Amino acid sequence: MLTIRDAISEDAALIRALIQELAEYDGEADQVRTTEADISRDGFGTNAKFRTFIAEWDSQAVGFAVLFHYYSTWQGPGIYLEDLYVRPEFRRRGIGTALLAQVAHTAQEENCRFVRWAVLDWNQPALDLYASLGASLLNNWRCVVLDGDGLARLARKGLSKT
Amino acid sequence: MLTIRDAISEDAALIRALIQELAEYDGEADQVRTTEADISRDGFGTNAKFRTFIAEWDSQAVGFAVLFHYYSTWQGPGIYLEDLYVRPEFRRRGIGTALLAQVAHTAQEENCRFVRWAVLDWNQPALDLYASLGASLLNNWRCVVLDGDGLARLARKGLSKT
Repeated sequence: MLTIRDAISEDAALIRALIQELAEYDGEADQVRTTEADISRDGFGTNAKFRTFIAEWDSQAVGFAVLFHYYSTWQGPGIYLEDLYVRPEFRRRGIGTALLAQVAHTAQEENCRFVRWAVLDWNQPALDLYASLGASLLNNWRCVVLDGDGLARLARKGLSKT
Repeated sequence: MLTIRDAISEDAALIRALIQELAEYDGEADQVRTTEADISRDGFGTNAKFRTFIAEWDSQAVGFAVLFHYYSTWQGPGIYLEDLYVRPEFRRRGIGTALLAQVAHTAQEENCRFVRWAVLDWNQPALDLYASLGASLLNNWRCVVLDGDGLARLARKGLSKT
């Protein structure tokens, strides 16, 4: 039987393991820099930077979702879904849809007008699922990231606003 | 002379106007659902959902940046840059770079490890600028959004976690 629950701080090691499994599925196993301590510090308490749902099948952890608030200057407040993952041996049972439904429900509870996320363009099962739920691809948009030395170099040109 | 400052609540009408100008540049003039009241309520105070920088040239508003916190389960805390815009007649003076530098500086002040944003794939001047600053395109990722009826339909399958 499937249940979905809010994660508790004792889940930090489990969440870190699920993050790693998802990165391996994405072909990016070496990209995970966060530690169990990061997850424990950043994911719980009154200043939590994200929220985590755990999916359990017969009390065994089988998937998770990580989400936080987003703000669209066109649409207003929304939810960003950073991670959505179901362990391979538990797929095709509706667990991904149930996690997404929980995220959608949370969005409506918190007066958020949309849920936004990113998907790998070769992940056809995920693309098919999202389309079947009525989600849209933002086709002309590309994601950009600046980090490491590039971020430090550019930051030196900026002034402190504090 | 260029200055960059934090927005104040009296800037809400200006910010709403700049959001509209950017949407028009993006070819999406009819997509802006937020009002000046939304910007005023959501952008200021202790529970602000985003932060805004205003660029001024000789005390005249010429551009803006809207940002908020993001959390990467791979990299940890980061900044999401929702909007970056310079009015057309003030381009090619380094104002976009100065706004981005301010965002990068803010990221470093707040122990954020990256800045992430989205760009339209036909916006070659923006793509060239970001590449010159050391930013990377996340080439295989596509943005997905679920809102409106699709969100409401899916939310009804989710259970309250409160």
